[in-house]
Amino acid sequence: MFGKILIANRGEIALRVVRACRELGIKTVGVFSDPDYNLLHLKFVDQKVALGGSLPQDTYLNEEKIIRACELTEVDAIHPGYGFLSENGAFARKLEEKGITFIGPDADLLERIKDKLQAKRILEEAGIPVVPGSREPLKDENEARKIAEEIGYPLFLKASRGGGGRGIRVVREPGQLAGALESAKREGKLAFGSEEVYMEKLLTKARHVEVQIVRDKEGRVAHLGERECSLQRRQQKILEEAPAPFLTEETREKLREAAIKVAEVLNYTTCGTVEFLVTEDGSFYFMELNARIQVEHPITEMVSGIDLVREQICLAAGEKLSFSPEEVSLRGHALEMRINAEDVAHNFSPSPGKISRFDVPRGPGIRVDSHCYSGYEVPPYYDSLLAKLIVWDCDRDFAIRRAREALHSFAVEGVSTTIPFHMKILQNRDFMTGNLHTKLIEENLEEY
Amino acid sequence: MFGKILIANRGEIALRVVRACRELGIKTVGVFSDPDYNLLHLKFVDQKVALGGSLPQDTYLNEEKIIRACELTEVDAIHPGYGFLSENGAFARKLEEKGITFIGPDADLLERIKDKLQAKRILEEAGIPVVPGSREPLKDENEARKIAEEIGYPLFLKASRGGGGRGIRVVREPGQLAGALESAKREGKLAFGSEEVYMEKLLTKARHVEVQIVRDKEGRVAHLGERECSLQRRQQKILEEAPAPFLTEETREKLREAAIKVAEVLNYTTCGTVEFLVTEDGSFYFMELNARIQVEHPITEMVSGIDLVREQICLAAGEKLSFSPEEVSLRGHALEMRINAEDVAHNFSPSPGKISRFDVPRGPGIRVDSHCYSGYEVPPYYDSLLAKLIVWDCDRDFAIRRAREALHSFAVEGVSTTIPFHMKILQNRDFMTGNLHTKLIEENLEEY
Repeated sequence: MFGKILIANRGEIALRVVRACRELGIKTVGVFSDPDYNLLHLKFVDQKVALGGSLPQDTYLNEEKIIRACELTEVDAIHPGYGFLSENGAFARKLEEKGITFIGPDADLLERIKDKLQAKRILEEAGIPVVPGSREPLKDENEARKIAEEIGYPLFLKASRGGGGRGIRVVREPGQLAGALESAKREGKLAFGSEEVYMEKLLTKARHVEVQIVRDKEGRVAHLGERECSLQRRQQKILEEAPAPFLTEETREKLREAAIKVAEVLNYTTCGTVEFLVTEDGSFYFMELNARIQVEHPITEMVSGIDLVREQICLAAGEKLSFSPEEVSLRGHALEMRINAEDVAHNFSPSPGKISRFDVPRGPGIRVDSHCYSGYEVPPYYDSLLAKLIVWDCDRDFAIRRAREALHSFAVEGVSTTIPFHMKILQNRDFMTGNLHTKLIEENLEEY
Repeated sequence: MFGKILIANRGEIALRVVRACRELGIKTVGVFSDPDYNLLHLKFVDQKVALGGSLPQDTYLNEEKIIRACELTEVDAIHPGYGFLSENGAFARKLEEKGITFIGPDADLLERIKDKLQAKRILEEAGIPVVPGSREPLKDENEARKIAEEIGYPLFLKASRGGGGRGIRVVREPGQLAGALESAKREGKLAFGSEEVYMEKLLTKARHVEVQIVRDKEGRVAHLGERECSLQRRQQKILEEAPAPFLTEETREKLREAAIKVAEVLNYTTCGTVEFLVTEDGSFYFMELNARIQVEHPITEMVSGIDLVREQICLAAGEKLSFSPEEVSLRGHALEMRINAEDVAHNFSPSPGKISRFDVPRGPGIRVDSHCYSGYEVPPYYDSLLAKLIVWDCDRDFAIRRAREALHSFAVEGVSTTIPFHMKILQNRDFMTGNLHTKLIEENLEEY
C-alpha cells in the first residue's frame, strides 16, 4: 500500500480523498491555490504545498507545479480527483516516468480513449452499440452535409478531444450546419488543441444512464449497478439517482453486461463509469467512458455499501477487488443533488462570496459531501459546487420524500444556491412519474 | 394511517420522530417545556403546544398535560420516544380509553412487563434462560441472606418496578446485604411507588447484548440482528455497536431465536429490544424487554436498511411488516457514540450552557442524530445527550477508523462533551480486541 499520496484537487473531492486515505492509514499531501488557503481538507492533511496563483492553469491544471510538489514531498502516488488532470494521459505518462503512481487508469489507456471517436470505433468493433454518426473526423462541410442527410437532424457536432460539455454544437436543421461546424472546430482547437470534429445523431427523449464498473489488474470485474443522470442543464448533471428507475430488467441487465464488456475490451483496471444513452424503446448506445471517480459516485456507495474511493486507491496499489462480484447486492434508492453557488433566478449565474451560514441537514439516510462551512469564502475561479446532498431510502418514493425534507432543512446564507431549484425538481410531475430525458430541465424546468 | 401524531418528547428523538412523520405524510404536534421553546424539532412540526414548567414531572412526564394537548390538537396517536412516558402502562391505558393510539405496545403488555420479576417468571416458564436469582420479591433480610448463599456474591438487588438504572444496588459481600436491601427498598418506594425488591446474580465479565425485534399484529416477526452495548458507565450505555462482534455464530443464532421467542410468548406487537447478558462461555440470560424505540436504534438501521421509527409508526397503525423477515440482510458494521454535555475530567458532571459552536462531521458512512445547533442553550433539567454520532463501514476495523476521523472533526464549543472520552475508548486495547464486558469502562477507562 502507498505510504503517502498527494491530492491534486480541491473542494469536496479533495476532502473525500483525504478522508479515505486517513482511514487507510496513508499520509496525505494537500496542494492549494492562493484563494484556497482555507479549504477544509487542508486541516486534515499531513503536509501542504502552496501552488501559487489563482487560475486553474496556474494551479490545479499546472502539471509542472504539481509534479514538483510530488517530488518535494516524496509521495508514492497522486489522486487526481475529477476534472483538472484526472483524465490527462500525458500527465499520467510523466508521473509513470518518475515512478509516481497515478490513481486511475494507466497512461496508455487514457491516451487511447482521449480521442472519443477512436474509442467509439474500438467498441463498435467489439459489438457494443454506439450512437450513430460519422466514423472519422469530418473532412469538410460537404462530407458533413452528406452524413447529416443519412443520420438525420437534429444532430451533434463534437470535438474529438473535447470533454466537460465543451466543444459541442447542436444542429437542428441544414441551415445551421456550416456555422456550427466552424465554431465547433474553433472551440476544439482553442480548448483541446485539435480541430477534429465528428458528428453524432441527437437522440431525442433519450436518457443518460451510466454503469459503475470496477476491475482489478487480474481482470476480476464487477458492476455496481447503474445511475440515472438525465437531469442536466447545459450538459452538466444536476441530480442523479441509483439505481436508474423505470428501466425494464432486460435493459438494465444488458446495460450492465455491455459496461463490463467495455471494461474488458479496453483492459480497464480501476474504477470507472460507462455512459450510455437509452432511448424510449429500450435501445442503448455507448457514449463515453469516464476513466476517473465521478462527482456522483456517492449514490452508488449508498446502494452498494462499497467505498469507491477506497477501492480505487487499493486497486491502484495493486490489490485485488475487496469483494467478490457475486456478493454485490444493491439495496434501496439514492439521490444526489448538486448544490451549486448559482443564482437560479438569474440564469444560474455563478454566485461566489462569503457563506455566512452553512447548516447542513442530518439524520437517517442523509449524507453531505462538502468542503464548505460558515465563514467560508467561495472563490470565483473554479466550479460552483458547494455540496452534494445525498439521500438514501428503501425505495424511490421515500428517497424523494426524504430529499425534500433534507432540502427543507439545508440552510445556506451569503451566497445564492440551487437548493430552491432542486425543490422544484423534486415536485415536478415528469420527474416523479419517470418521464426522464436529457432535455427535461431545459424544456420544462428552466423557467423559474 | 394516522392523520396527526403528537410527539411527547424532546431533543434528538423528537426530531427523529417528526422527520419520520413528515416522510410518511403525517401531520405533527410538538410539545415543549419552558426552556425548550427553541428546540430544533419545533421548526418542523405543524402545531406546537407549550406545556408550561421546566421539570420533567411538570412537562414531559405530566400525563394530564400531555393528554390535554392531545385533545386540544385532536391527534390520532402519540409517539412517546424513549424515557419519559414511553413504558408507562397506566398512561397507555388512559390514551386507549380516549381512543388515542399509543405508539408502542398495548397497555396490557406494558403492565405485564412492568413488574420485572413477573416478566422473568413468564419467560423462564417458556424456556428462556434468565439470570439466576430470587423468583419472588424478597420477604425479609433472612430470606435474602439464604438466597444470596445459594446464588453467591457479588449480586444485585433490584426494585421490581425500577428502570433507567435506578433502584439497583450491588452487594459484594454478606456484610453489605442488610444496608443495601433497606436502601433499594427505599429508592424503589420513592421512585417507583413499590418497595418490592428482588435479587439477581451479578455475572462478572458478562456482556450486554440485545436483539432488535419487530412483530406485527398478525404475528409476523423478525429480528434485525443484535447490538453490543457493554460499554456502560453507571448502567448508562455510552457506545454501542451492531452487529455484536466476537460472538460465535452459534451464540448469535441462539440469541436471535430466544429474542423472537420472547416476542411470541409475550404476544409483543411493535418494535422492541430484548436484552441479554452473555457470559464468557457463551451462556446467555434474559435481562429485560425494552418495549420502546431505543436510543441506539440507528446502528440497527444502518446495518439492516430498515427505518425503525417508520416501521414502529406503521405497525401501530395496524399495517403489516413492511419487509419479509427472510429478506432481511445485515450489511457491514455500525457504531454509535453518545455525545453528552458532560465534563469527563470532573467525574462526568453535567455541563449545561450555551453551545457557541456545533460543527458535526459529515461524509460517507456518517450519520448524526442531534437537536443541537450553534447558539443552542443546553438546559440543566433533562438528560445530557447532545448528539448521537453513528458511523457505518464495511467491517468493525474500518468502522472504528472512520469513527476516529469523525470524532476528530466534531467541533463543539461552549459546553464540555464526552468526545475526548470516546476518542479514548476507540484507542483502548480491550475495546479493539474484543475484551468487552459491562464493567470495562468503570474498571479500565474511567480514570481520565
